[in-house]
Amino acid sequence: MKVILNGQLVERTEAKVDIEDRGYQFGDGIYEGFRVYQSCIFTFDEHIARLFHSAELIDLEIPYTKEQLKEQLTELITANQLGDGMIYLQISRGTQMPRNHVYLPSNEPVLMATSMAAPRDPASFEKGITAITAVDDRWLHCDIKSLNLLGNVLAKNQAAKAGADEAILYRDEDHVTECSHSNVFIVKDNTLITHPANNFVLNGITRQTILKLAKENDIAVEERVFSLAELKQADEVFISSIMAEVTPVTTIDDETIGNGTRGPLSTELEQYFVAEIEKTCGVEL
Amino acid sequence: MKVILNGQLVERTEAKVDIEDRGYQFGDGIYEGFRVYQSCIFTFDEHIARLFHSAELIDLEIPYTKEQLKEQLTELITANQLGDGMIYLQISRGTQMPRNHVYLPSNEPVLMATSMAAPRDPASFEKGITAITAVDDRWLHCDIKSLNLLGNVLAKNQAAKAGADEAILYRDEDHVTECSHSNVFIVKDNTLITHPANNFVLNGITRQTILKLAKENDIAVEERVFSLAELKQADEVFISSIMAEVTPVTTIDDETIGNGTRGPLSTELEQYFVAEIEKTCGVEL
Repeated sequence: MKVILNGQLVERTEAKVDIEDRGYQFGDGIYEGFRVYQSCIFTFDEHIARLFHSAELIDLEIPYTKEQLKEQLTELITANQLGDGMIYLQISRGTQMPRNHVYLPSNEPVLMATSMAAPRDPASFEKGITAITAVDDRWLHCDIKSLNLLGNVLAKNQAAKAGADEAILYRDEDHVTECSHSNVFIVKDNTLITHPANNFVLNGITRQTILKLAKENDIAVEERVFSLAELKQADEVFISSIMAEVTPVTTIDDETIGNGTRGPLSTELEQYFVAEIEKTCGVEL
Repeated sequence: MKVILNGQLVERTEAKVDIEDRGYQFGDGIYEGFRVYQSCIFTFDEHIARLFHSAELIDLEIPYTKEQLKEQLTELITANQLGDGMIYLQISRGTQMPRNHVYLPSNEPVLMATSMAAPRDPASFEKGITAITAVDDRWLHCDIKSLNLLGNVLAKNQAAKAGADEAILYRDEDHVTECSHSNVFIVKDNTLITHPANNFVLNGITRQTILKLAKENDIAVEERVFSLAELKQADEVFISSIMAEVTPVTTIDDETIGNGTRGPLSTELEQYFVAEIEKTCGVEL
């Protein structure tokens, strides 16, 4: 197994970083996760654009062009013979000694990327998942895909300890935001509703793709804040992420959503999503 | 130069961690900074107690006793012949592959500790620093001394870019919290005022020592929320941290505080602080 470290393919076991890498001491860095279908990186351009956007928001200069990053990830796919899988890529602000909150223009960012085989699991998109609700106590820059993920980690583990698959987060009972590592959508009276893309949520690439597909297919869409009551009384609820695609949520806090099975709009959107993958990647799923 | 890595003294240049250490990917870990005066770790017990408290709050089990940690830090001081300086110690939730928000009981925490020579600088405690005010947009668990410090980093760099030494943070104009890496106190009519030790601030060990010394010396103390207006109209303002001790803030957003020099209560508290170091460490400063 190979990984990318600072532009070079290296053996997984040899990939180490300095203990004073700012990513390790401050979470001072950004990342992206890419979904790979039959060796094709789905929505690569959108992910890379977001990576550069996150970098800009934390005043970090990425020392590679988009084309260089694509070359590196393509090399990684080839080296690891990755078919269906995912790639994780992060860039930290590099090593700085002695530790200091103030970063320096001379810092050399550290890039690393790993890959993991992960077949698609259409059965899970049909079966759906269970969720709990949990307080969203994260910072107010959730639009930055940063390495500061302890709030997300604690929420996800709160779900796991409750025997649920995901945590749906809320600032207060009138304001549901997103999940610990996915966006959340509700369907009410054939309208698709999700949180606006502002500082309270990460503007997921899968979220954006779903919204685009909904609009192309004349599905009514509202990007607005919704409440916990609206969430639980929705006709359908689903989450979206690169791995989840369109995955229905069948129970929330042990309460059944709709009739407890995947709803018609979730089914329809997943079909459009599969068609979009097939079209843009030129593959057959 | 030596550092501690997982209980062992190793050469600084050889101290590396895995790219999939959860500290590196999620900021999933905690830390402490210790002030060392003439090879004595000041308020060691208080720092270690807080480390275990932070660990508990993120559900992390530290695989060492307090006594073992003291032995390791003492070895580090000896190996590096550290007189006046500081020690940085962090514990992450260790390496986990593949990356997953859900942590596992089998994760082996990774401990690392570095030391840095740093003489006391009494002139700076007399001269004071300048500060800006900045929005506190961090998460709602600032009581955990965690590795999720990007909000602190961005605030500190906002100050640096404005030519100031520190950023004093506020949730809204009625609610000043703390600084990017220190606590903040104001003095009004001979009363010492600082934010209560709750989830909005880190309960600094230096903060606690100052409050103890104030009470022992019959200085009126209020632990309560104060506003930006109270901050700027205070008779004295100072910050506290292991490195700053009691350091006056002479200007905030370019507005002069008091008469722009260290005030009488800041002077008095720094004297008590020095006496406390001398007494508990058995040294003469």
